[in-house]
Amino acid sequence: MLALVCRMGQLVLQRDYPEPIPQADEVLVRVTLAGICATDLEIVKGYVPDFSGVLGHEFVGVVEQAADSGWLGQRVVASINSGCQTCETCHKSGPEHCPNRRSLGIHNQDGVFAEYVVVPVRNLHCVPDDVPDERAIFTEPLAAALRIREQLVIRPSAKTAVIGPGRLGLLVAQVLHLAGEDVTLLGRRPDSLALPASWGLSTGLTTNYADNWFDFVVEVTGNEAGLAEALRLVRPLGNLVLKSTFAGGSQVDLTKIVVGEISVTGSRCGPFAPALRLLAGNALDTASLITAEYSLAEATAAFVRAAQPGVVKVLIRP
Amino acid sequence: MLALVCRMGQLVLQRDYPEPIPQADEVLVRVTLAGICATDLEIVKGYVPDFSGVLGHEFVGVVEQAADSGWLGQRVVASINSGCQTCETCHKSGPEHCPNRRSLGIHNQDGVFAEYVVVPVRNLHCVPDDVPDERAIFTEPLAAALRIREQLVIRPSAKTAVIGPGRLGLLVAQVLHLAGEDVTLLGRRPDSLALPASWGLSTGLTTNYADNWFDFVVEVTGNEAGLAEALRLVRPLGNLVLKSTFAGGSQVDLTKIVVGEISVTGSRCGPFAPALRLLAGNALDTASLITAEYSLAEATAAFVRAAQPGVVKVLIRP
Repeated sequence: MLALVCRMGQLVLQRDYPEPIPQADEVLVRVTLAGICATDLEIVKGYVPDFSGVLGHEFVGVVEQAADSGWLGQRVVASINSGCQTCETCHKSGPEHCPNRRSLGIHNQDGVFAEYVVVPVRNLHCVPDDVPDERAIFTEPLAAALRIREQLVIRPSAKTAVIGPGRLGLLVAQVLHLAGEDVTLLGRRPDSLALPASWGLSTGLTTNYADNWFDFVVEVTGNEAGLAEALRLVRPLGNLVLKSTFAGGSQVDLTKIVVGEISVTGSRCGPFAPALRLLAGNALDTASLITAEYSLAEATAAFVRAAQPGVVKVLIRP
Repeated sequence: MLALVCRMGQLVLQRDYPEPIPQADEVLVRVTLAGICATDLEIVKGYVPDFSGVLGHEFVGVVEQAADSGWLGQRVVASINSGCQTCETCHKSGPEHCPNRRSLGIHNQDGVFAEYVVVPVRNLHCVPDDVPDERAIFTEPLAAALRIREQLVIRPSAKTAVIGPGRLGLLVAQVLHLAGEDVTLLGRRPDSLALPASWGLSTGLTTNYADNWFDFVVEVTGNEAGLAEALRLVRPLGNLVLKSTFAGGSQVDLTKIVVGEISVTGSRCGPFAPALRLLAGNALDTASLITAEYSLAEATAAFVRAAQPGVVKVLIRP
């Protein structure tokens, strides 16, 4: 089958990649739509040096092989982490932190930039009929945005900033706005804020805000400078959530964290069911997040496009 | 009066330093005992570049001038932060994070390595008669240790590590142990662990523990390598508390924080009343924490001693 393979940070479009064969607890899904996210771009830059295989984890597809025939023909999305199901972590907190986990297109498991993908049946979620593929493709990043609200008590009165109006930041800001938060989406360039401003979100240039201005800051910039800005903006006793994963260590002003008694929380994958509920309710704008769509044959061009400034979601259609 | 003054990181013993004059809401305290803490050593290294004045914030003394004569002759300790009392932060969360605060011997306020010090009357706490100066001197660092339990829910079943068996780490470990936590105090050298082991505390070499071993880690090493070790030892979804303040930025592996969804919380000054309760109850060993005592005239020698490896608390008696 046709597949976009990443080996030691090199992207190669392979025409004869072996079609995957599902195990008893897995299904074979024909990928109908896939999305490029910042993590994919970071993997190509070397964020997961040992990854070798088909890249990609955001997808919608149709089940074509399954032990339980009830799944056949179902339109599905799937959470990306598969745990060993035997360790304490799996039992206590699910597969996301299992030390032996596989992660779709990220770690020890072929991903979705391909004609077919195999996923564990327990990771599947049916997509409601009234949610088209072009909306359902946002299930995984929207779940990641919702994760923040599973981790922290976010007071609706908290002065909140989301820094980084990119793929994920635009979803995080919408999720917090929907929940009634006093949220401002911050960016470095005015043109990056036009879209969220058109939705009626409060927006601003990061540099226009004074030190310690916000009670709660979500850092979604994907770069080290963003973290420094986030720390600058969060007030003493405030909360900072880190969403960015990127290659390399980072220089951090720990003095502000200690003296300001700031809480910093890392945040990764989230719950699919509420994400699908929000998508079904048409509560968020996703259509305007789609910058471009490429065929799988053009996948390397899609990656070039996705890495350009101002580009939000680039889709790949196998 | 005699005072140990720090100017641009230079320590100078000054014989003719002006005796401080209390304002209406302040008292004049004759310092009877003072203690050197890691923050003092860091200030000398340049951690607070703009500090210029009498160093020191851990003290016990006797009130000699006060508007309210009830304070005269009282043996006291005092919390170190004085807020403006008019800002939102002062009203909502006390003086510790007031943007205009003064901090005894740290920021805009002369400290306690002197014959006399002036402190706001609202910061005073009377020392119970059965707590001698040599125990009361631990009120401030013990309060800082207790602060952790004010910030986080620490499950008594959490596998807990305190990294750094120094001045503050020895108190943090005792505080958590007293509260029933499953706490292990970790260090780099076996000889640094002999004292806490003699108290019956669980101890170990940091390098002997596997990655992700602990649910909850308190970093009190005062150095950058300690932070890296703390991050290595805390499990995904675990909590890390940072107690160390030191000069300069730090290289941090943010990927572990984000992918492991770790919560990192800075922690600084704590409540004096429970610290005095614990000291009055003789619940902790403080006597064996005292490595040496110097007269104020020998204060610069005391600083040299306090900076040596294996030294715990060095006291200065004016």
